Amino acid sequence: MDGNEIALRFRDLQLEIVEALTIHDGKAVFQSDAWERAEGGGGVTMTIDNGRIIQKGGVAFSKVTGEITEAMKTHMGMRGDSFLATGVSIVLHSLHPLHPTIHMNVRYFETNEGNAWFGGGIDLTPMYVNLKEAARFHKQLKSVCDAYHPTAYERYKVWADDYFYLPHRNETRGVGGIFFDHLVPETDIDSNKIFEFCLGLGRNFPLIYKDQTSEIHSEATQAQNDWQALRRSRYVEYNLLFDRGTKFGIVSNGRTESILLSMPPMATWKYNYVPKPGSEEEQTIERLKKHVDWISLL
Amino acid sequence: MDGNEIALRFRDLQLEIVEALTIHDGKAVFQSDAWERAEGGGGVTMTIDNGRIIQKGGVAFSKVTGEITEAMKTHMGMRGDSFLATGVSIVLHSLHPLHPTIHMNVRYFETNEGNAWFGGGIDLTPMYVNLKEAARFHKQLKSVCDAYHPTAYERYKVWADDYFYLPHRNETRGVGGIFFDHLVPETDIDSNKIFEFCLGLGRNFPLIYKDQTSEIHSEATQAQNDWQALRRSRYVEYNLLFDRGTKFGIVSNGRTESILLSMPPMATWKYNYVPKPGSEEEQTIERLKKHVDWISLL
Repeated sequence: MDGNEIALRFRDLQLEIVEALTIHDGKAVFQSDAWERAEGGGGVTMTIDNGRIIQKGGVAFSKVTGEITEAMKTHMGMRGDSFLATGVSIVLHSLHPLHPTIHMNVRYFETNEGNAWFGGGIDLTPMYVNLKEAARFHKQLKSVCDAYHPTAYERYKVWADDYFYLPHRNETRGVGGIFFDHLVPETDIDSNKIFEFCLGLGRNFPLIYKDQTSEIHSEATQAQNDWQALRRSRYVEYNLLFDRGTKFGIVSNGRTESILLSMPPMATWKYNYVPKPGSEEEQTIERLKKHVDWISLL
Repeated sequence: MDGNEIALRFRDLQLEIVEALTIHDGKAVFQSDAWERAEGGGGVTMTIDNGRIIQKGGVAFSKVTGEITEAMKTHMGMRGDSFLATGVSIVLHSLHPLHPTIHMNVRYFETNEGNAWFGGGIDLTPMYVNLKEAARFHKQLKSVCDAYHPTAYERYKVWADDYFYLPHRNETRGVGGIFFDHLVPETDIDSNKIFEFCLGLGRNFPLIYKDQTSEIHSEATQAQNDWQALRRSRYVEYNLLFDRGTKFGIVSNGRTESILLSMPPMATWKYNYVPKPGSEEEQTIERLKKHVDWISLL
């Protein structure tokens, strides 16, 4: 299977996810924005706003081709002259502060020199950590991983803990998830296995998000909304300071609006804000640690 | 004059600026937050919130000492074993959308090997560009620069245009200002001249800000407030993606709350937002270009 075929399947995956999310949201519909890249390729960015469940979000597909620039060599360790990169990226910011922000990405790169690899991940960022929901999320990921490789969940979960981390806040972005990069297929069978794993992750995404957002909560309090806005500033900090895809996209003159699709609808900053001792907000901060075995906690 | 004396004068400058801004605001008062750095030195971060004029802002002083780490060598071109860095940094986010955000910084570095330099700058970020106010701002900066060196304004203005620039948005942060770095004193007289220039910039800051925010406007419309929130997201993007001080502070394990003092109280993101043709908002975007000679425009 080559990059063009993988890209077609990724585009199908995008549409499948968008369809499922549209049904789940039940109010807003996705807007589709197709774009082309002068240097080669393009994408379709599908965005949703002011839904019943999703306040702001997007499911983006892209397939870009072109020359391997110096920036790509430096930032991504790529070699060769030309490349093809394709993937699906999702970030959904939920309306209710008791519903989480969620992110998923699956991607594939190949170069003219025959290097090829897959990468991806999914992570959950609740405003209020709920142990039951965190455990369910991780069980679902483990189940997708187990179908691919017996130690994949364990390895990719640690990778996510280390990747989705804000060193300057000494906190994880949320309750983690899985992250993997540079998965190099060694045989065609292996290539299919990795690709099926990526597709499996994508196909499970709508169900995973639905499970996280099906509970109907009473109207959010002002305190909950304030906390959501403050936590969203940490999401902004992570994406602009540390997220490799964002940094690479900006540095390599990518399509800004598609790269910054991940931004929340709104974020607030307060100097040196510390939650009240004993509050749910404080409890959440205390739970934003690496290497928590969420599944065994419940 | 050595680093310790310069730091004392910078601390005095901070208090002088805070006093003048407090009188101008007339409602909120600054909170003072002293901190120490385990590796050496510390600072006093003075913050203001919910004022009559200033919605969120800070005037920060710091004097940090320590070993020159690999990160400092890489990111700041520093050499030697130990350093002293001291400075005053200001960001003020005004409450009214017709009042600008403003930033100022003056700083001094010295190393045990005898290297020493000054840096700094000031730039203005209106939500709605007003040519008269932009010209006044630049005239005031030119006047401070002219007292230091006949070509300083011209050189530092270009430097600011290039520095306060968002390549991914193809727009400047605002109407620019001046920026200078690595000004190396070659003699004691020269050192005093650069230092007096930095102090002069600082002492003029309250007046410059007062001039930009003295006009009383009628209550902001929802459209103006929405635009202000959206423009503030560009300020966030600049600071987290490009600002050298922010990046260096985060990378070098600096004091996060003092580094991110520059964040606005609130920011919003909308996918692919384009202002209405012919609107004041569109006019502002069109004016956010490099190398505009603001003084001669009026």
